[in-house]
Amino acid sequence: MQIAMIGLGRMGGNMVRRLLRGNHEVVVYDRDAAAVEKLVGEGAKGATSLADLVSKLKAPRAAWVMVPSGAPTQATIDELAGLMEKGDIVIDGGNSNFRDSMRRSAELEKKGLRFLDVGTSGGIWGLEVGYCMMIGGDKGAYEHVLPGLVTLAPKDGCAYFGKAGAGHFAKMVHNGVEYAMMQSYAEGFELMKASEFGYDLREVTHVWNQGSVVRSWLLELCERAFVKDPELKQLKAYVDDSGEGRWTVNEAVAHAVPVPTIAASLFARFTSRQESSFAMRVLAALRNEFGGHAVKKA
Amino acid sequence: MQIAMIGLGRMGGNMVRRLLRGNHEVVVYDRDAAAVEKLVGEGAKGATSLADLVSKLKAPRAAWVMVPSGAPTQATIDELAGLMEKGDIVIDGGNSNFRDSMRRSAELEKKGLRFLDVGTSGGIWGLEVGYCMMIGGDKGAYEHVLPGLVTLAPKDGCAYFGKAGAGHFAKMVHNGVEYAMMQSYAEGFELMKASEFGYDLREVTHVWNQGSVVRSWLLELCERAFVKDPELKQLKAYVDDSGEGRWTVNEAVAHAVPVPTIAASLFARFTSRQESSFAMRVLAALRNEFGGHAVKKA
Repeated sequence: MQIAMIGLGRMGGNMVRRLLRGNHEVVVYDRDAAAVEKLVGEGAKGATSLADLVSKLKAPRAAWVMVPSGAPTQATIDELAGLMEKGDIVIDGGNSNFRDSMRRSAELEKKGLRFLDVGTSGGIWGLEVGYCMMIGGDKGAYEHVLPGLVTLAPKDGCAYFGKAGAGHFAKMVHNGVEYAMMQSYAEGFELMKASEFGYDLREVTHVWNQGSVVRSWLLELCERAFVKDPELKQLKAYVDDSGEGRWTVNEAVAHAVPVPTIAASLFARFTSRQESSFAMRVLAALRNEFGGHAVKKA
Repeated sequence: MQIAMIGLGRMGGNMVRRLLRGNHEVVVYDRDAAAVEKLVGEGAKGATSLADLVSKLKAPRAAWVMVPSGAPTQATIDELAGLMEKGDIVIDGGNSNFRDSMRRSAELEKKGLRFLDVGTSGGIWGLEVGYCMMIGGDKGAYEHVLPGLVTLAPKDGCAYFGKAGAGHFAKMVHNGVEYAMMQSYAEGFELMKASEFGYDLREVTHVWNQGSVVRSWLLELCERAFVKDPELKQLKAYVDDSGEGRWTVNEAVAHAVPVPTIAASLFARFTSRQESSFAMRVLAALRNEFGGHAVKKA
């Protein structure tokens, strides 16, 4: 099929490559002309602007937006909406908040445009393994782009979950679960390092990856990381987040669903970024006030 | 090689089967004579008592104890210690506390006996997949029983981690991580069910198992469970624990290692068993006291 890809970063670029391998016609655009040129060299059709991109597509046009969530995604969709025609399809494959996807779907629908929200998992490994995709939005649009989705996904790796927002909500929860799984392993490895047994975590993770109950793809990545740097000495103990964990906790609050491990894993990341926690200074002050306990001066 | 198996339950029985498939000579004993007879029918040599079992082994004798942790394991090892000779090997393959394993190793060493603590993961799937084994104790004893271990494990699925206790400590942490991973998924699925999107969790788990970041063996088991009973209507929301999670949290406290998700997942199980939480009645009482908030009467 013919499909457009807007945003040729780590995810978008490799998705184009996977689509090209599946013999699809891919029209590509990125603000960075060099990224476009590179993929043109690999068989994609280049575009110099969104207007140029839309002009190169046959109706019903299908444009996959793979730019950062928030303002860049909104701006891209707004511009596309002004260029596309009734029946055309806008696909948001980024990590957008599902509430934005529900709103954008309704706005595009007013103009006769169809919308799909695609939660995409697989990271930089997707080119090789395929991208796991959770999809919400217009069912007919889903069916139209299904040949491309099947190429992008591993076998059985994409599914239509229902109305707009269902894809990005599923991806949000996926990422919340991912935070807590990562934190589960992290706590276990820290405890093993604190023990008297002097474990080599390259060996522990390698053995755990063979038939244990906790084997997983994340544990395979742990093993890779320990092989590269057994003590992780090259890393600062500082962990960012890109929003989905916060949204998961927010939605859990909205629905009154207890998510203690997901919340704890999000808060552990916040703690990791604190140079000097005010809360811990409050505790130190209080221990000193009521018990005269020694404190460490800043 | 020749090896004895004591305790022929779900784990021990299948381990005997796997050893027999590997053409090892396996002498078996269980308090339940029917369990012995069954495995004799499959090629094992039966024993009618521990004394009979020891008499059927050639020195250096190797006896694998696979009975419930705590008193049954202690009683079995005590009796074996009185029957075995210098250089013989006692293997504890159960979920013993690593501190017990350290103590038992020292006690057996006084009698010239060698000890191995083997943390075994894989559950009822081990017969097919192989058992992941984390091993501590006497290095020479490990080398002696290695042919049997290699048969029991999947490729690369067993490793020697050091002095006595290193195997059961690693298994303890493995199970602590397992608690938190299970809880991570559980929270995510509860949030998905609470959403407006009407997810079919059979589809969600099936798609997540294809190339997503959260794919794992536990997630494959989730998918199996949802296929059998999509709403899990046949289950009470009551979850037992068998000790390793508690030990993990205890060790984290001993080493001052923060394990918020592991602790939260253990406490979630405790909460699941409460018919009427006293803590929640305290909260209800206080909300009523200070704010006149409505309470539900028992």
